[in-house]
Amino acid sequence: MSTITNVSLVRSIPSGAPTVADFKVSSAPTPAKESLKDGEILVRTLYLSCDPYMRGRLSGRKDSYVASFEPGKSLSGGGVGVVEASSSAKFSAGDIVTGADFQWRTVFVAPAAGFIKVPAAGAAEPVNVLGVFGMPSFTAYVGTVVLCKIKAGETILVSAASGAVGQMVVQLAKARGARVIATAGSDDKVQFVKELGADVVFNYKTVGDYEAAIRSAAPGGFQAYFDNVGGEFLDAVLKCISPNGRIAECGMISQYNATSDTAYAIRNLSYVITSKLTIHGYIVSDYYARPAYGEFVQEVSELLKDGKIQYKIDEVVGLENGPQALLDLFEGKNFGKRVVKVTGRSGRL
Amino acid sequence: MSTITNVSLVRSIPSGAPTVADFKVSSAPTPAKESLKDGEILVRTLYLSCDPYMRGRLSGRKDSYVASFEPGKSLSGGGVGVVEASSSAKFSAGDIVTGADFQWRTVFVAPAAGFIKVPAAGAAEPVNVLGVFGMPSFTAYVGTVVLCKIKAGETILVSAASGAVGQMVVQLAKARGARVIATAGSDDKVQFVKELGADVVFNYKTVGDYEAAIRSAAPGGFQAYFDNVGGEFLDAVLKCISPNGRIAECGMISQYNATSDTAYAIRNLSYVITSKLTIHGYIVSDYYARPAYGEFVQEVSELLKDGKIQYKIDEVVGLENGPQALLDLFEGKNFGKRVVKVTGRSGRL
Repeated sequence: MSTITNVSLVRSIPSGAPTVADFKVSSAPTPAKESLKDGEILVRTLYLSCDPYMRGRLSGRKDSYVASFEPGKSLSGGGVGVVEASSSAKFSAGDIVTGADFQWRTVFVAPAAGFIKVPAAGAAEPVNVLGVFGMPSFTAYVGTVVLCKIKAGETILVSAASGAVGQMVVQLAKARGARVIATAGSDDKVQFVKELGADVVFNYKTVGDYEAAIRSAAPGGFQAYFDNVGGEFLDAVLKCISPNGRIAECGMISQYNATSDTAYAIRNLSYVITSKLTIHGYIVSDYYARPAYGEFVQEVSELLKDGKIQYKIDEVVGLENGPQALLDLFEGKNFGKRVVKVTGRSGRL
Repeated sequence: MSTITNVSLVRSIPSGAPTVADFKVSSAPTPAKESLKDGEILVRTLYLSCDPYMRGRLSGRKDSYVASFEPGKSLSGGGVGVVEASSSAKFSAGDIVTGADFQWRTVFVAPAAGFIKVPAAGAAEPVNVLGVFGMPSFTAYVGTVVLCKIKAGETILVSAASGAVGQMVVQLAKARGARVIATAGSDDKVQFVKELGADVVFNYKTVGDYEAAIRSAAPGGFQAYFDNVGGEFLDAVLKCISPNGRIAECGMISQYNATSDTAYAIRNLSYVITSKLTIHGYIVSDYYARPAYGEFVQEVSELLKDGKIQYKIDEVVGLENGPQALLDLFEGKNFGKRVVKVTGRSGRL
């Protein structure tokens, strides 16, 4: 009997750093086409997405905007895959599909309603569905364009600029004629972000005093900050950002594994008043049904066609390596958008 | 020779609680009408305004949005007075004038450019210029109406609701059909805020656990928070405010006398992301040149005419009591909008 690989959560981790021992990699019988109920599809997973927001889903919290994973059950999240069998009129075998409810299984059965078909142009390179057209990339668009409204002549600071979100913030801001100041966590990443077009990039791990580094990188000030990291770096930004500055509050990865003892408390929030700042917290899923999503797809399609945008994917091969692939995010060990390659188009890796 | 009273700063106080010993009350010769240079006016002060933002002006900080007071020189701030002599075509003797550069002197000479004439309707009750039509009242309008855009069916929470700003937040929100949850710092103040129309009011000094108190007062959640206090109360609000909540960040009076040892650091800023919050920091002076100011004057005039608004003034008599009148603000000892009555219309108190 053929089997599939399945990654499930062993226990909830409310705070602190999860380890691979908190996940279980197991085998299960391959679901049979004949088992499909009406309206279901059988999907073979091509790629799964590893994203920082998934830390919250490991916590067991019941009151969050996204449900926690249940111990003993498969993880789930963004993915792209191929329909192997369908009892839904929506899909046919061979369709490439995406959605936010991919199970962390090589093959799985699910209701068709949670999936959409990838257009032929995108299906040729399925990893792009999670990459340059993916959720983190659209997250960059919403924060940079919709909320911060960055424009030519302005300066934007972005943290974690080589990551899934940050690399698009850099390029979308440059495409608008803005000056870009960026941070990254290794010299290689700094070099990559410079190649994306950022004007000044520094390694936050070696730079020492954040406030001094920011003021030195942006001597004329900066009008917007795209936050991916939170914590001490955000606290320094609050002191330095120019009057009337806008902050897109996208993520605080420096705090996701914090405990009550290690969490960083913010001391400079009073600058929100004295510097007249606006802080925009947001969740990208609220924006898919708005005009911004179509505008994003169109702009990125054109930039891609003209060779004016790049998007770095950091691919880990094999679902059995999925837990470590996810945990790496919280230590900045990924370089670009982290995905897990689960199966190839042929069915093999 | 007749003399006037003058209040000056003895030393800058970067942090911690100022005391009356940090101010000097002295006499000086009354300025003579004959000393006026071209374009100057001689003003007799009727009322001076005591406002929380003045704490920043005691600090000696050079990088703030408002200049610090210089030790050895008069304090200054909002006021209303009568022109006793003018060498400016803008004003005649007897005009009632207002502005943000009133010197803390019973009589003073200044360039006419910093003052505007109060229309006859307002001049009949000059304290209203600092009260219901004053800067704190307009501050309430900007935060409640322009930034939070509160509307019927929504709930707004406001802290320090018996103060110069808070009492208008309550009434402007009620005038729009919103539900109002409010805090105040004594049972008398709680009673007053209830009389203004607030739906639920609690005494933050005796309520115990802020988070529990807020959840109990607003079991259905709340869509907006008007912050006058910052610190621990704000931290609790961040946890409780409803998804997509808006925060008008007007003031943080709980922190204005803090030292680096006593300052409260914010632990719950990550809720800005998970609850998709928008925080609007602002300074009211940016809004006087916008349509909002005319809209505010018109709305408040109509509410006053119809007897639908009240505004509580907390008047301290005598400029020599000015320092204590100001310092009381930082301990919540005022009840309503704190002003100093300097001279009466007749020239005497």
